[in-house]
Amino acid sequence: MVNASIITIGDELLIGQVIDTNSAYIAQNLLPKGIVVTRRLSVGDRQQDIIDALNLCLSDSRVVIITGGLGPTADDITKPVLCAYFGGSLVMNETVGNQIIDLFENKLKRPVSERNLQQAVVPDNCKVLFNPVGTAPGMVFEKNGQLVFSLPGVPHEMKHLLQHDVVPLLMAHYELRPVLYKTVMVSGIPESDLADVLIPFESQLPSGIQLAYLPNFGVIRLRLTAYNADEDVLQQQTTQLQQAVSEYLIVPSDKKLEEVVAEKLLSAGATLATAESCTGGYIAHTITRLPGASRYYLGGTVVYSNALKEKLLQVKSRSLEEHGAVSEPVVIEMVQGSLQHLKADYAVAISGILGPDGGTSEKPVGTVWLAAGNAKKVITKKIHLRYNRETNIEAASIQALLLLLQSIHEGQQIQEV
Amino acid sequence: MVNASIITIGDELLIGQVIDTNSAYIAQNLLPKGIVVTRRLSVGDRQQDIIDALNLCLSDSRVVIITGGLGPTADDITKPVLCAYFGGSLVMNETVGNQIIDLFENKLKRPVSERNLQQAVVPDNCKVLFNPVGTAPGMVFEKNGQLVFSLPGVPHEMKHLLQHDVVPLLMAHYELRPVLYKTVMVSGIPESDLADVLIPFESQLPSGIQLAYLPNFGVIRLRLTAYNADEDVLQQQTTQLQQAVSEYLIVPSDKKLEEVVAEKLLSAGATLATAESCTGGYIAHTITRLPGASRYYLGGTVVYSNALKEKLLQVKSRSLEEHGAVSEPVVIEMVQGSLQHLKADYAVAISGILGPDGGTSEKPVGTVWLAAGNAKKVITKKIHLRYNRETNIEAASIQALLLLLQSIHEGQQIQEV
Repeated sequence: MVNASIITIGDELLIGQVIDTNSAYIAQNLLPKGIVVTRRLSVGDRQQDIIDALNLCLSDSRVVIITGGLGPTADDITKPVLCAYFGGSLVMNETVGNQIIDLFENKLKRPVSERNLQQAVVPDNCKVLFNPVGTAPGMVFEKNGQLVFSLPGVPHEMKHLLQHDVVPLLMAHYELRPVLYKTVMVSGIPESDLADVLIPFESQLPSGIQLAYLPNFGVIRLRLTAYNADEDVLQQQTTQLQQAVSEYLIVPSDKKLEEVVAEKLLSAGATLATAESCTGGYIAHTITRLPGASRYYLGGTVVYSNALKEKLLQVKSRSLEEHGAVSEPVVIEMVQGSLQHLKADYAVAISGILGPDGGTSEKPVGTVWLAAGNAKKVITKKIHLRYNRETNIEAASIQALLLLLQSIHEGQQIQEV
Repeated sequence: MVNASIITIGDELLIGQVIDTNSAYIAQNLLPKGIVVTRRLSVGDRQQDIIDALNLCLSDSRVVIITGGLGPTADDITKPVLCAYFGGSLVMNETVGNQIIDLFENKLKRPVSERNLQQAVVPDNCKVLFNPVGTAPGMVFEKNGQLVFSLPGVPHEMKHLLQHDVVPLLMAHYELRPVLYKTVMVSGIPESDLADVLIPFESQLPSGIQLAYLPNFGVIRLRLTAYNADEDVLQQQTTQLQQAVSEYLIVPSDKKLEEVVAEKLLSAGATLATAESCTGGYIAHTITRLPGASRYYLGGTVVYSNALKEKLLQVKSRSLEEHGAVSEPVVIEMVQGSLQHLKADYAVAISGILGPDGGTSEKPVGTVWLAAGNAKKVITKKIHLRYNRETNIEAASIQALLLLLQSIHEGQQIQEV
């Protein structure tokens, strides 16, 4: 395996203004090709800190990928520091200059400034990675067979250069052995109990294959990684793993939950509507962040107020008065209203108290009622969440999608009978 | 300033399975107290890598905060490695053991396993930080006046221990000088143009105050940080900065956009409804992730299909046929339908093509129509986004909230006339 270090540069990362999503994206895209990230390091926009980071990473990594610090403002010093580190000089690159002019004149439709044009000044000792989606070009330096890439910190620019330049260059430069994975997704069992269930499986696992647990609010992904094993051995172990967890299996592959929902709905030829109170649109967002959701998702309602629960979904005012908005009768009526009024085949509904305020002794913060179903059957579930508001919203949405999957599964069984 | 390094431990961070949000949270919470993070380092679950990381960080940082690697599974080795690093032995801690039993019996309502009880074994050379929200306790080691904290990697557990234990211990241990900030939020000007506008301001800025730009899809936060200046000097500079950018000012303080919306609606005594097509619930989510949103937000619709645009918002089928769903007439009707049918004082609507597919030569991917208004006036805007789907959703939602703010602002001016 070729090993890599990632260096992210920028005070905004150190003071927590920006969350570093670039490192995860880079690692995810390098590992399948056979490059394993063994260190991630963030430093500020200071020359000596950048040099120290480079020295450290070049001492043990064959590849170094740097992001950030390439912007047009004075605090962005990555380019001159790298240029000097590798003993070069800064020169104007006409191709980059013309690209910047084109970007401003034809896409951004505003005049290009001298500050922006300065982005075309690059080191004369690197290969320039042209950036068609931004003004800062990437760079790659080579020294003693080690490659040092410098990419913009803006995520969509970094992603573009990683896919179009960095990965192909790495594959050309090193003899890489791709890493193989298989993932299975389970639900309905705590991680520590699952670890007990898997003791016999883990004890027979060949040394070239590793098992990792990735729990996420009720869903656990089990990933088998073949660092040093053939595809058929990995497949055989995956089949054994699926058998060992068959009682808890959602799907025998690595999918996002919304992808599983999409597949089940498309294969059933069914449509979906959502009815959300406490999650406030997050379930709808989870479903629609997947491209092509319009093939099965009609839409939904965010019935935050009781008035809208009545108006948009015909929830009975008597149910709201007698049982409260966070109750089994209300979520059932939200499903039924969505089915009838929005004309969907399946609906999922949620009403709860996600905090930090609004709890009572009878219904403390974290109490959530869920319902999902079709015209024939509605199933419900009550859960208690114990995180902060933001995390509760995410966890509740995952539970809602799990209940929806159960409902679709049962719906298909009813049809088959 | 006391400086700190953050070490995050876990293979899941290096291979990109998990995005590190902990580091940003820790840095955000330490800086105002006077502790500046100067390095973030992620390493895998390997003894030597953890020891190397500790050696590096202890060579120049007065505080080291470690997260991760404290779970109950075999790959979690942070605890024994730290124990050995500081020359201690592992012993059973009864208080922690009883807390774990209590958590399982009274909150999780399932039997505690031997594996979970092993979490109560802690080093005898650290102060134990009791964890009431999980099974893994935190630890703090002291050596030569340097403090090394070890916290669980689960975000809500880490946050709890940071707030309740780490920050108070740091404030007791060091003489800290709080760092002061002021932020102003602007919109409607590209970052590089803003940098030109601010040349005179920056040239007179005292050396103890730094200006940072944080751009986020049309909104730029300008943050003044007083690393070495008094509050009145900072306030005076902030006033000058506000004057310099007055043309583009949204609010003279650091707020989330949804907080500004909340304040404006509450002070106008007005309610809001959302009508989303392409953003699929993300605007509603942005509004409702703020606690207390039910005071002004009635709810909304996710009218992903044309059928629901007609059914829930009375968009005319003729408008959809003649102009298409992504058009000015349709978003105007979506606002009007929300105002009339959902009985809101203000509504915001969006319809667009966020990709990756669905574009035409006339309406390419990235074309988005926005509308916002009240019963008296509806304003509209057409934008072109050029990111990936996920980022387009976020950017479009920010633009929608900006248009809504403009509408509320104009609405208040109409009332005042």
